Amino acid sequence: MSDVKALSHPVPPGGTIGIIGGGQLGRMLALAAARLGLKAAIYNDEDHAPAFQVTPLQVAAAYDDQGALARFAEICDVITFEFENLPADAIALLESLKPVRPGHRALETTQDRFSEKNFIQSLGLKTAPFEAVSSAGDVVKAFAVIKGPAILKTRRLGYDGKGQTQVGSAEDCAAAFARFKQAPSILEGFVDFAFEASVVAARAADGSFAAYDPPENIHENHILRRSIVPGRLSRAQGDEAKAIAKAIAEALDYVGVLAVELFVGHDGALIVNEIAPRVHNSGHWTIEACACSQFEQHIRAVAGWPLGDPTRHADAVMENIIGAEAHAWESLARSGALHLYGKREARLGRKMGHLTRLKPKSSR
Amino acid sequence: MSDVKALSHPVPPGGTIGIIGGGQLGRMLALAAARLGLKAAIYNDEDHAPAFQVTPLQVAAAYDDQGALARFAEICDVITFEFENLPADAIALLESLKPVRPGHRALETTQDRFSEKNFIQSLGLKTAPFEAVSSAGDVVKAFAVIKGPAILKTRRLGYDGKGQTQVGSAEDCAAAFARFKQAPSILEGFVDFAFEASVVAARAADGSFAAYDPPENIHENHILRRSIVPGRLSRAQGDEAKAIAKAIAEALDYVGVLAVELFVGHDGALIVNEIAPRVHNSGHWTIEACACSQFEQHIRAVAGWPLGDPTRHADAVMENIIGAEAHAWESLARSGALHLYGKREARLGRKMGHLTRLKPKSSR
Repeated sequence: MSDVKALSHPVPPGGTIGIIGGGQLGRMLALAAARLGLKAAIYNDEDHAPAFQVTPLQVAAAYDDQGALARFAEICDVITFEFENLPADAIALLESLKPVRPGHRALETTQDRFSEKNFIQSLGLKTAPFEAVSSAGDVVKAFAVIKGPAILKTRRLGYDGKGQTQVGSAEDCAAAFARFKQAPSILEGFVDFAFEASVVAARAADGSFAAYDPPENIHENHILRRSIVPGRLSRAQGDEAKAIAKAIAEALDYVGVLAVELFVGHDGALIVNEIAPRVHNSGHWTIEACACSQFEQHIRAVAGWPLGDPTRHADAVMENIIGAEAHAWESLARSGALHLYGKREARLGRKMGHLTRLKPKSSR
Repeated sequence: MSDVKALSHPVPPGGTIGIIGGGQLGRMLALAAARLGLKAAIYNDEDHAPAFQVTPLQVAAAYDDQGALARFAEICDVITFEFENLPADAIALLESLKPVRPGHRALETTQDRFSEKNFIQSLGLKTAPFEAVSSAGDVVKAFAVIKGPAILKTRRLGYDGKGQTQVGSAEDCAAAFARFKQAPSILEGFVDFAFEASVVAARAADGSFAAYDPPENIHENHILRRSIVPGRLSRAQGDEAKAIAKAIAEALDYVGVLAVELFVGHDGALIVNEIAPRVHNSGHWTIEACACSQFEQHIRAVAGWPLGDPTRHADAVMENIIGAEAHAWESLARSGALHLYGKREARLGRKMGHLTRLKPKSSR
């Protein structure tokens, strides 16, 4: 990867930010780019991407289509991602053609749960206990270390609870591993946490750093239901969460917005669950509650602009609108700041939009 | 106009809002539509419209191209405008094909300064003194009534000080009228005002009404320089301004956002300067300072959705970025919420973007 392109100067207004992935995150990134006078180009593997509705610059092709990726790179000044699972070959190709932010190092580290957790521990940060499961022979050994109940997770390509399953015994675990077609996995011990939280932060190429106040997150069926800021995190825990994000961003020489998902232990300890090298669902409330949203912040960072002000001017509750809940759009439109993503079918478990309600800022 | 199409039900998410005019107002309307899961289609008479950068649905054709207008109407569920000067024939054609909001009545009334001022006075509201100047013979008569100094304005197609000139004598006025090629005009007396203000408000098809807090406006070279909220308007004057907007919206059976520009007299009287039947530059601060911006509010109204909450949660100063000022985008990006419009050339007097700074809400 010697011929990785660097961005020598900021992308000026009128320049084009390439975004790999055309879901709601790509859509909201494109809308944020437009505020700043930047164009957004979207690359997506399906024709009907939400983000295709908000820019004329679009390529629909497979994520491993090297020709299409090269044509896409041609119209972009810098390239970024709405998701972390692009094949390594595609990342290498893009990086040889145009500046890519965040780069392959951040993506490779976070694409694989095993390397991600090792990386986190190498920084002196806490994770759930975990063991690699690479072969049927590893199952019994791993289960003996972690003990049950535990969660078997594929090392790659998991999100919203996909590619993971709870196991109560070594036999369960062996069966799950077989169902995963023996894909390299990890066995992760349960963390008996008090609640979940996350921190969304940005690092610019010059090393400057800006973190949003960390929300408390409530999940249902492995999908984020609600983010609440301020949640149950104390001020000291909030500061610690921001410091964790900063340590991770610096160690990865990261450029852009990242999110760190956290478990908050009954003893108050912060345990890192996972790193998302991108804007994150638990940061959507920043659109209304901060002068510079996580989406604008990411665009600023990848375009080489100065970071914006992450100060929160209101308390906020962000609620996801999932599946058929979107049918109630008319009443939702009466009850807060409504965002809908332009998805055609309200499938079960699909994130269709979100609703943010603001309240005057409390003292925390 | 018997076959004007009405909107029988709200445009659902996934529907398309047609916007005539692809400047910054069309662009920000399109971005607001996207938040709500609505598509935006843009019609503009030049190829390189700012709003063309934020949607794949676009038609570039003359505003009197009936074939292109008809093709445009076909892809829209409802049609609206970023400017009020569409030819009457074009409006009539669009109204025969699809619901148009606001409709021809509001556009016709406000396209012509003479009919606009008569309409305002018919509601018992104050305007500057004015006289029609339709022929050379009218000049002396009009000047004798208004007395100098005064302003000669063409009845149609004026904005940002275009189509108007200050005159100190009947001879001046005759010369100006000749320069206007005897276009139907009005001679308007000066109002000795303390300051300028405006009120931006919305009316829905069901008659519900929502007004934003009225800003004080500062103009330079006939172009809005700055809007300040709260400005020097008292609370009572703010309420009166909102009542004026409501009276105008109801009398026009208006659907959408409108702005009313006001002079505030030294005696505290509110004098209506003009009505803009559209979103307005003096309402840009609502993007950051209100839960529902003027752009989203307009989209909601024209799509038949419930109006959003116009409550202001912060004090705000909005400053236009004009011409070469946009070259300082990097330092502007450090100093507030920056919006750039994607215009290619920073021409003299051209609105290139705006910057909004928020402060905690004061008691007013």
